[in-house]
Amino acid sequence: MRDATLRDVAQLAGVSARTVSNVVNGYAPVTARTREKVERALRELNYRPNVLARNLARGRSGQIAVVVPYLDTPYFAELLQAIIPRAREHGYNVLIDQTDGDAAHERELISRGARAFLFDGMIFSPLGLAQEDLVEIDPDLPLVVLGERVSNGVFDHVGIDDVAAARAATAHLIGLGRRRIAAIGDQPYPTGEAAQLRTRGYRQAHEDAGLPVDESLVIPTPRFNRADGSGAMRALLARDDPPDAVFCYSDLVALGALHTALELGCRVPEDIALIGYDDIEEGRYSNPAISTISPDKAAIAATAVERLLMRIGSTGPVPGIEVRAGHRLIARESTMGKRHRDP
Amino acid sequence: MRDATLRDVAQLAGVSARTVSNVVNGYAPVTARTREKVERALRELNYRPNVLARNLARGRSGQIAVVVPYLDTPYFAELLQAIIPRAREHGYNVLIDQTDGDAAHERELISRGARAFLFDGMIFSPLGLAQEDLVEIDPDLPLVVLGERVSNGVFDHVGIDDVAAARAATAHLIGLGRRRIAAIGDQPYPTGEAAQLRTRGYRQAHEDAGLPVDESLVIPTPRFNRADGSGAMRALLARDDPPDAVFCYSDLVALGALHTALELGCRVPEDIALIGYDDIEEGRYSNPAISTISPDKAAIAATAVERLLMRIGSTGPVPGIEVRAGHRLIARESTMGKRHRDP
Repeated sequence: MRDATLRDVAQLAGVSARTVSNVVNGYAPVTARTREKVERALRELNYRPNVLARNLARGRSGQIAVVVPYLDTPYFAELLQAIIPRAREHGYNVLIDQTDGDAAHERELISRGARAFLFDGMIFSPLGLAQEDLVEIDPDLPLVVLGERVSNGVFDHVGIDDVAAARAATAHLIGLGRRRIAAIGDQPYPTGEAAQLRTRGYRQAHEDAGLPVDESLVIPTPRFNRADGSGAMRALLARDDPPDAVFCYSDLVALGALHTALELGCRVPEDIALIGYDDIEEGRYSNPAISTISPDKAAIAATAVERLLMRIGSTGPVPGIEVRAGHRLIARESTMGKRHRDP
Repeated sequence: MRDATLRDVAQLAGVSARTVSNVVNGYAPVTARTREKVERALRELNYRPNVLARNLARGRSGQIAVVVPYLDTPYFAELLQAIIPRAREHGYNVLIDQTDGDAAHERELISRGARAFLFDGMIFSPLGLAQEDLVEIDPDLPLVVLGERVSNGVFDHVGIDDVAAARAATAHLIGLGRRRIAAIGDQPYPTGEAAQLRTRGYRQAHEDAGLPVDESLVIPTPRFNRADGSGAMRALLARDDPPDAVFCYSDLVALGALHTALELGCRVPEDIALIGYDDIEEGRYSNPAISTISPDKAAIAATAVERLLMRIGSTGPVPGIEVRAGHRLIARESTMGKRHRDP
């Protein structure tokens, strides 16, 4: 049996071939009802796009790149897990690269991207590059940036409101009566944007409550890893005046801090309450389970793919926009104690 | 300044252009001394291969695919993290796909791989496909299989000795004096190869010690996730005769089981000792830290890339071989108690 063509699908669905193409390739929006008709026909005919022929015809690779600093960071793994099926729905393969946060590698990817590598657009989570480095973009490269940089009008940016989220996390600890609240994860200008926004939220929550910030409780770390959290907690507990709560700039930092706090005989949350950031699955299963800020990862993934495909499909330049995904605070045992269990 | 060419590098290193190509593309082995000379010249000249031109010239995409069931499973994320830099060293980009263990998607990837998609070879960790399905391979597709399937002489297989590893894990629990040892993660024929090998090792350790296996303590789970471990532990602790130890078929299963055991008031390891499998970083930071079987992931990644590039570079068919990477048992607090800490 020969493979079904776009035309066969159009005939069965009772729509034009262009409409089928819009559904398959995500070039233009279609109504939910039309999409459903087309998707039913695609399934019935077991339609599989001929990737190579299609790409040749339109001068595209049919691939998008997703570039993250570290693949084994659960937050990025969960985000990729959400991005891949969205891209595949539109017939795109996903090429994944990790940069280890290396600025030179990141710069090469965005400055020579579309010309030197085989992809039509990029979803990029920078780490080594500062905001001001994001001007050297290959003009042919459709780009959506994730994380804490902001759009400069050339690329799209999708992220959450980090200052508001960090403020809410810190306010949660203050609301529980804690007064000596440490922050673990501060990082210096220029590349530490994520950290700086979180420190700003941490300060604002203190101001809101009329509390002073003890600067010696703001602990810088090289990265946002378990080992960073563990080392910082060890230093905090060696002090004469240890904190009674800690806001950690990632769940991995919180998990490392928790491990060391328990190892050194601290009770969590009785002696030290802990809140993290990212809502990775691991934090839901740790002992105690970790309170956290949960970014809407599904919305981030869906919006990033949608904006990127729209940019790829556009014939002219598309002004970059700023998209804010939602976030919420999830209180678990590491701040609420054993009486509080996830449903 | 014009970009450096292969010829420039060869001249500076004092070797032939073919030798430089062997180093860059991994076509043929070179001595350590030659490799070092070439790599120094590559760095000095800041040599960057022109990917598109090179691929056009040799009729290749310059990409390898790595296909895993789930990207957000830490074991696969850690493996990918190890594979990507190895591939990049040889000028290959890595295209990543996740299958969700869907047999139809897995079958399409291996049967139409080289023709329908843009890659020169594949490192593949099957989940939905059984051993006997691995015959329908696109004959043009260089393939290295990871996990528990075995080579049928057509593709290479890289894995550890699962039976020996599971036997060692179970023997560790028996050696601590435990006698009612549950196994969490059994899965039925035909696709549950990984699980079946581990159950076999669990049985062998019992035989070695002259202990009977209580079949009601062998608990099947749909997958190897935290939720699977949590559910199984809940069922085990609801019995009149709960086990005094559990061998979990992955660290995620062990972390879920641990969470629920503690939640229900069990002491680990005093009431129940726990051992996992995979040695993911999360298990080193859990409370208590989890004893585990540690596969040599660096060796698995390096061998898989090396074999794949050799197959891609070969002009004729290459007989498939079976490669066993090493593993070791790491005893931590979940079996040894608080007295035992990682150094």
